[in-house]
Amino acid sequence: MPKSDPINPTDDDARALARKLLKNARFGALATVGTPAPLVSRVATVAHEGAPLILVSTLSAHTQALAADPNCSILLGEPGDKGDPLTHPRMTLCAVAQSADKSTLRHHWLAAIPKAALYYDFTDFRLFRLAPTDVHLNGGFGKAYRLTLEDLI
Amino acid sequence: MPKSDPINPTDDDARALARKLLKNARFGALATVGTPAPLVSRVATVAHEGAPLILVSTLSAHTQALAADPNCSILLGEPGDKGDPLTHPRMTLCAVAQSADKSTLRHHWLAAIPKAALYYDFTDFRLFRLAPTDVHLNGGFGKAYRLTLEDLI
Repeated sequence: MPKSDPINPTDDDARALARKLLKNARFGALATVGTPAPLVSRVATVAHEGAPLILVSTLSAHTQALAADPNCSILLGEPGDKGDPLTHPRMTLCAVAQSADKSTLRHHWLAAIPKAALYYDFTDFRLFRLAPTDVHLNGGFGKAYRLTLEDLI
Repeated sequence: MPKSDPINPTDDDARALARKLLKNARFGALATVGTPAPLVSRVATVAHEGAPLILVSTLSAHTQALAADPNCSILLGEPGDKGDPLTHPRMTLCAVAQSADKSTLRHHWLAAIPKAALYYDFTDFRLFRLAPTDVHLNGGFGKAYRLTLEDLI
């Protein structure tokens, strides 16, 4: 019987996995505060200095939710088409969404997602930095970790 | 300039897409209520009678969150490895989690996810039906729809 989500002591492998998930993610699932239910939606993401950036439309429900309450979480680390999705590593970052400067980070974003040049400069797109407050890493069955913010950098 | 999340009139193509996303999903991103931030995590899912079932461990944070507050949402429709993830169709179902009968739905679940036979019967795994209350379909840029529950069946 596999262990069910015990928290393992953080080791260098866990830190390396968390950094890799953060660095490689190009999209994620964002949970924003809602009433009565929180809202989960897909967002584009690029990591920067130990935190995910997200580029979102001001017309979308998730952006309006973040404007009302910046507390959120994002799931990073998407399984491919093969194997049991629950054995694929993923990470949940609880975070506070902060406005980020689009012009300063333009090159960084477009280097990771070149096609975003089509809409990056639209005035109704905003860039947020999701400043992490808590890190839950799940490397698969029995491989749960709770990391610190320093572990991500 | 692409339209940014306008709500289009629901048509048969949108209904068919929503049903396909629900039927084909084997995992999704579940958002549960949390303080201060909602928690998003990966869950296994199988559709049944117009709603997602999820099989979750009672030891996990999302199951404990659902026990405290059954309001949740789930994102279905995962992009593959190719192309712009934001052009891939996906759907957010806002829902209320209801306990579902594991023994009655055992065959249904295992027919969709045979490998779950390894742990389906563990007493610390619970089955929930996520009874939808609201349906947001996003077929890609400019293809947003708001569907009814009847549209899913």
